[in-house]
Amino acid sequence: MLKYFDPRQLAHAPLQEMHNGGWADHAEKPSRAEIVLGQLGDCAAPKDVGRAPLARVHTADYLDFLENAHDRWRDAGRTGDAVGYTWPVVQRRPLKLDRIDAQLGRYSYDAGTPITADTWDAAYWGAQTALTALQPLLIGEARTSFALCRPPGHHAGADYLGGYCYLNNAAIAARAATDAGHPRVAIIDVDYHHGNGTQDIFWDAGDVFFASIHADPATDYPFYWGHADETGEGAGRDTTLNLPLPRGTRLPAYLEALDRVIGAVAKFAPGLIIVSFGADTFEEDPISHFKIAEADYPIIADRIAKLGRPTLVVMEGGYAVDALGRNVEAFLSGF
Amino acid sequence: MLKYFDPRQLAHAPLQEMHNGGWADHAEKPSRAEIVLGQLGDCAAPKDVGRAPLARVHTADYLDFLENAHDRWRDAGRTGDAVGYTWPVVQRRPLKLDRIDAQLGRYSYDAGTPITADTWDAAYWGAQTALTALQPLLIGEARTSFALCRPPGHHAGADYLGGYCYLNNAAIAARAATDAGHPRVAIIDVDYHHGNGTQDIFWDAGDVFFASIHADPATDYPFYWGHADETGEGAGRDTTLNLPLPRGTRLPAYLEALDRVIGAVAKFAPGLIIVSFGADTFEEDPISHFKIAEADYPIIADRIAKLGRPTLVVMEGGYAVDALGRNVEAFLSGF
Repeated sequence: MLKYFDPRQLAHAPLQEMHNGGWADHAEKPSRAEIVLGQLGDCAAPKDVGRAPLARVHTADYLDFLENAHDRWRDAGRTGDAVGYTWPVVQRRPLKLDRIDAQLGRYSYDAGTPITADTWDAAYWGAQTALTALQPLLIGEARTSFALCRPPGHHAGADYLGGYCYLNNAAIAARAATDAGHPRVAIIDVDYHHGNGTQDIFWDAGDVFFASIHADPATDYPFYWGHADETGEGAGRDTTLNLPLPRGTRLPAYLEALDRVIGAVAKFAPGLIIVSFGADTFEEDPISHFKIAEADYPIIADRIAKLGRPTLVVMEGGYAVDALGRNVEAFLSGF
Repeated sequence: MLKYFDPRQLAHAPLQEMHNGGWADHAEKPSRAEIVLGQLGDCAAPKDVGRAPLARVHTADYLDFLENAHDRWRDAGRTGDAVGYTWPVVQRRPLKLDRIDAQLGRYSYDAGTPITADTWDAAYWGAQTALTALQPLLIGEARTSFALCRPPGHHAGADYLGGYCYLNNAAIAARAATDAGHPRVAIIDVDYHHGNGTQDIFWDAGDVFFASIHADPATDYPFYWGHADETGEGAGRDTTLNLPLPRGTRLPAYLEALDRVIGAVAKFAPGLIIVSFGADTFEEDPISHFKIAEADYPIIADRIAKLGRPTLVVMEGGYAVDALGRNVEAFLSGF
């Protein structure tokens, strides 16, 4: 399978995240990508197609914020990673916010997604990796392709970061695919966590179907999205499909949900599929609670492959670092 | 002047708050109340009039959350103070949230307002202090009264905590006053920070006028509220008055704003006035940036006193602890 990565994605290395009332070591480490590279071998480098495809998904003000936030943090006399401390939970209207702390709250929804001096660069090249990995599918040169994106993307919305995500790689690729002429694209999100950012981005879009299998938001992050009755609005009505599953879910129940996703995607008849793949469904993941084994991943991938569409696999989460390379390879082997 | 306090308010002692990308010692210390007590001498104890007046301002689910949050935090295996890490910045609809972390985000808007094992008790008695201090004004036995509330209250909304505040003492007293028969009550908020919670609570209420002089939200917490064009809605249209002032403001400019407030309040013709008094306008306050001197406080108070209404002074912020007793005494001396 074609596979893509840019080493500049490794530079993003936030030190800590808020958890359990204090700081914990940050789970989304550069070693995640390194161990996948070690397993998969060399990946091709992305081309730089610039910022325009990012701006098709993210707002201009958010991109400006993300690119400059850490400089502004330092200009304000701060050291270390930039992270918010207050969030505009009660919003009435758009506001012009000058102070970096206010902007950090405005453009994020958690205290677990710090902006380092290298975040923009790493996220930018992650998005370029997804866009480059998409190209051979668009021109019919390949049927499957893997973008080793890091930091992940599916929690990032049009104008917010969160959940270790800054730029929504899967969404950027999906919009690039429709811009390239595909009338319909489907995103299948099989990360342990709900892909709230992707959902929000395509909430009222009729041309991108978003289907997600994930831990029930009643028990798991991101809590405020991912319920079964969230199905889209306007032109996007019924093009969002959420299948929350309980903690402890094993392969049989997972496949039942997956078959529902596959049926819905087949009915939508997309010309191209993007898989947001998180290996945090793995039974030994330190921050997640499904019971998917390494040997299960080819089975899951095989069912998606049987849809018979050109398929881009985009890396999302997965925090059992030692096993991550094997789990990714197992998943990709199913195609 | 009559003055009220309950020692149970001292038990709330959060250790740390999020600031500048890390933890800082919590600024809202029990010693704040102790030093004021040392200056003022004995305060009368509040009566317990129960939870009903709190529920006139705060939602029942919020009060239940606040009372039980720390127990639930411990039940979830956590130690220390409870604090959120993710906030529902993107809200579509009410959600039933089970997990304590999700609830902490839902019912707060910052990471600087931890819930300790003693928070409910301290906040409850702070609210009782405000309610008891109001009584002699309602029955005409006094013209002025001081409630030494701590933790402060004016950042707490109907269903959220934040800014070191849990129960909105001034709002609870204001609603108790209208419930007791006053057709119109005015709250004058002279804390350094905008009283966003109070504003939100009375946003669409026509019987409580809310006027605030505070640091410009462009530069100062709480950032997302307190702009001059926020004036209320519905029945509360034009009963909110915000006068943001720049950092470095000294007495003359402050008095100009105060005279505008006093003119507007006089026009509203309230039967009773509640002053949300923060001494963090003080020139040496460690987290604030106005330049009000100790000798200025009687002048400010005198102008409010000249409105000639029964007036309840409720303690809000003020973090130059060593000077806090003198500043409070100076302010109260103006009545």
